[in-house]
Amino acid sequence: MDATGNDLHHGGNLAAAEERFGRPRQGWLDLSTGINPAAYPLPALPPEAWARLPDGAQIAALLAAAQDHYGVPDRGCIVAAPGSQALIQWLPRLMHSPATDTTVAVLTPTYGEHARSWAGAGFAVDPVADFSAVTDRHTIVVLANPNNPDGRQIAPDRLLALAGRLAARGGLLVVDEAFADLTPRLSLASAAGRPGLVILRSFGKFFGLGGLRLGFALGPAALIDRLADALGPWPVSGPATRIGAAALTDSAWIAMTRQALANATQRLDALLTGAGLSLVGGTDLFRLVEHPAAPTLFERLGRAGILVRDFPERPRWLRFGIPTESGFDRLSESLNGWTSHKDRNASDVRA
Amino acid sequence: MDATGNDLHHGGNLAAAEERFGRPRQGWLDLSTGINPAAYPLPALPPEAWARLPDGAQIAALLAAAQDHYGVPDRGCIVAAPGSQALIQWLPRLMHSPATDTTVAVLTPTYGEHARSWAGAGFAVDPVADFSAVTDRHTIVVLANPNNPDGRQIAPDRLLALAGRLAARGGLLVVDEAFADLTPRLSLASAAGRPGLVILRSFGKFFGLGGLRLGFALGPAALIDRLADALGPWPVSGPATRIGAAALTDSAWIAMTRQALANATQRLDALLTGAGLSLVGGTDLFRLVEHPAAPTLFERLGRAGILVRDFPERPRWLRFGIPTESGFDRLSESLNGWTSHKDRNASDVRA
Repeated sequence: MDATGNDLHHGGNLAAAEERFGRPRQGWLDLSTGINPAAYPLPALPPEAWARLPDGAQIAALLAAAQDHYGVPDRGCIVAAPGSQALIQWLPRLMHSPATDTTVAVLTPTYGEHARSWAGAGFAVDPVADFSAVTDRHTIVVLANPNNPDGRQIAPDRLLALAGRLAARGGLLVVDEAFADLTPRLSLASAAGRPGLVILRSFGKFFGLGGLRLGFALGPAALIDRLADALGPWPVSGPATRIGAAALTDSAWIAMTRQALANATQRLDALLTGAGLSLVGGTDLFRLVEHPAAPTLFERLGRAGILVRDFPERPRWLRFGIPTESGFDRLSESLNGWTSHKDRNASDVRA
Repeated sequence: MDATGNDLHHGGNLAAAEERFGRPRQGWLDLSTGINPAAYPLPALPPEAWARLPDGAQIAALLAAAQDHYGVPDRGCIVAAPGSQALIQWLPRLMHSPATDTTVAVLTPTYGEHARSWAGAGFAVDPVADFSAVTDRHTIVVLANPNNPDGRQIAPDRLLALAGRLAARGGLLVVDEAFADLTPRLSLASAAGRPGLVILRSFGKFFGLGGLRLGFALGPAALIDRLADALGPWPVSGPATRIGAAALTDSAWIAMTRQALANATQRLDALLTGAGLSLVGGTDLFRLVEHPAAPTLFERLGRAGILVRDFPERPRWLRFGIPTESGFDRLSESLNGWTSHKDRNASDVRA
């Protein structure tokens, strides 16, 4: 990560995509992120949302809305941040105890910033491919549920049992629930406050407002207080405070959106498998597929102005975000072209 | 600081003011902050500013605008953050070296979050009342120039000399230039990159957009890289990225606003001194006055719905932000009432 944010290891970087593919005539169809393309409709913002620092009453309204939406038992167990990324940055720094030799298990593959942030704070990071490979050697365990990019799900009772074991030896389970709005039954939010468990929630993905920068940590009050203290006063913008409070209490929009994303996911799956791609997994905000010729398809889509997420370390994988209506048409056209091209040029396919 | 941001030790907290004074019929006239009441006019924001994570090209445009406005010699010497407060939070954590016994001099009185943040990261903080009291004992020196709340100014050459001495022994001078937009000749931005010097800039105060959360650190590339790494990807919102880039390049608005704030300050000074208050100092975004009956005036103004900043540790001081046109009328009326009341009740005045 350089100071300009200009790297290719995250989705959504159209500047980097243009360096590689040029600027597409029709504009980009960006399917490289897991952000809902049908954003929450912005409420009117009063001038003071921009001008003034959000005050205690506005932050309290935001936290109450989040507490209710996520189902957190206690108000002292939730804190807001400018994106869940800000919490990923701070958490390892607050846990750092140079006296102990702490090994952090990160259930991989997953969102790369977790391992990066713990390693950056001086922890030994142990990438673990399977939940059952977590051992007593691991004092801190980090995983995403459901996972990005493969959608892997771990049952809440297994996670709560692990959090209990970790708490008993002064450890911590970090569960990144960035995509759990789509599967609320998976969320551990109702257990927030138990020792040894911290949950990260992202606002921007489900609500389609990634640029707003809003996320939450749920956990034991003492740890939440330390995070709040580290973030300092006014970590969240006035617009994020107000839009977040409105969106998180809009249960009609939330229910409608869950259904719409489930429908769009079914449609995307049909399109992708129809093109000969194998579905590995996903959530209702992204789908992970596998194909021996994935690098060729990535290039072909990129040249057609469709950016998807590739994985240099897993060259057979591609991740597709959910298209808009017009995006479905463009993607369908490109995939049809690829299928016929592929049939004509079987040599493109390398195992 | 609790998780709701609800404390009285900062300006601008109307929720706390309402607990104390009740909600004023005419609404609050908030003069408790140093935020320009005539905000930069918001440009139209495209939907993607909200929906998408700001990409490398947008961040680069923001940093170029800031580099030019502040006069930073090198692009590698500037990083953006969600408010300069976020930088105040991170800086001590990055400088922390438990092996050395580092004493941090904070030139006081000043913005309270500096001492709080360095102490919170485990440093010994030594409040120093005068610049000449900084000694070789101090490895890190923190000050604001011009200072808040008293407007104290220190000549750039004295600061550069100190930064040089500190750098020679591995130390650091932190200069908070939150209010330096009004006095660009005081800024050390053109020296950003020199070892031992880091400068913090606030966007929201001069541009009247405190709710946007945008600030910058200027300094040696290695330290700026570490700050960027600590902040992580996408620390700044899409709206802040675009509004910041527009405002920081709007030289006509900037020149007009400097003049308007200078005029308003003259008018405010006449009003305050006309009411018998002694001017201690300030910048063109706030004025600090002194009076033996300051606590009585604070209460009187509060009950009239005018919130100013008091200083529990300096009970004779009050800080006034710059009013809008209608705010001037309201303040004038209240101060006139106070003056006649005070003349009638000389016993209110305690030395």
